[in-house]
Amino acid sequence: MEFNNCINYLLTIAQHAVFVQTSEKLAKYDITPGQYGVLNYLWENGDATPKDLAAALALENSTVSGVLDRMQKKGLIDRRIDEEDRRSVRIALTPKGAALKKDVLQAIEEMNEAVLGAFDKKTAQTLLAALRVIGKSGG
Amino acid sequence: MEFNNCINYLLTIAQHAVFVQTSEKLAKYDITPGQYGVLNYLWENGDATPKDLAAALALENSTVSGVLDRMQKKGLIDRRIDEEDRRSVRIALTPKGAALKKDVLQAIEEMNEAVLGAFDKKTAQTLLAALRVIGKSGG
Repeated sequence: MEFNNCINYLLTIAQHAVFVQTSEKLAKYDITPGQYGVLNYLWENGDATPKDLAAALALENSTVSGVLDRMQKKGLIDRRIDEEDRRSVRIALTPKGAALKKDVLQAIEEMNEAVLGAFDKKTAQTLLAALRVIGKSGG
Repeated sequence: MEFNNCINYLLTIAQHAVFVQTSEKLAKYDITPGQYGVLNYLWENGDATPKDLAAALALENSTVSGVLDRMQKKGLIDRRIDEEDRRSVRIALTPKGAALKKDVLQAIEEMNEAVLGAFDKKTAQTLLAALRVIGKSGG
């Protein structure tokens, strides 16, 4: 099988290229694409449990835990005891994490425009829709 | 930005879903998707330097080196001194590595049909073409 016709190969190569571009865009704000994922969820939802974040970002709980450790060290998030269930932890933005919102969303918007700008609007929509379908497949 | 409209998020989720399906298909033959990549290159090209493999698979040299170590332990490939340049190494298939070709290519074909079978032919072609373009972007 030609690599160039294999969906696993093409997705891997494309994901890598876009991950690198996203990382470069975010480096200015000293955050990684995974850390952006956490921030974006918290910007939309206020706070969250680590489990909410793992589900939203399709990551393992252990991976999320490592991401949160690094974000807490950088002062982007805090871990707080849930007042309604004192055995569980909620993740909340610090003022520093909240303040990044506008600039980081702008950077992500620019990355999306740079990548999708290679295609006409209909092709870009077809691509995004197909990726959503594939993302839900196999599980 | 909605995750569901972000090309970095959608590619990551789609790549992960297909990687898992590919891993499951290949588990029967005790190889990983990365090891399949090496085998496929060698089935097509006979033998190769580690550098050829890194370039073809878009991996770091150090990553390829680790993949080759594990493949050599399993008896799928051999490292040989290049007779034309005794400072360099060539990677060659063992009979065991060569013998996997038919069954593994069949498994990869089935994975591609399972993933792309969700789309009509034109959409599948648009998707593959777009991923090739994105894979070459940004570098």
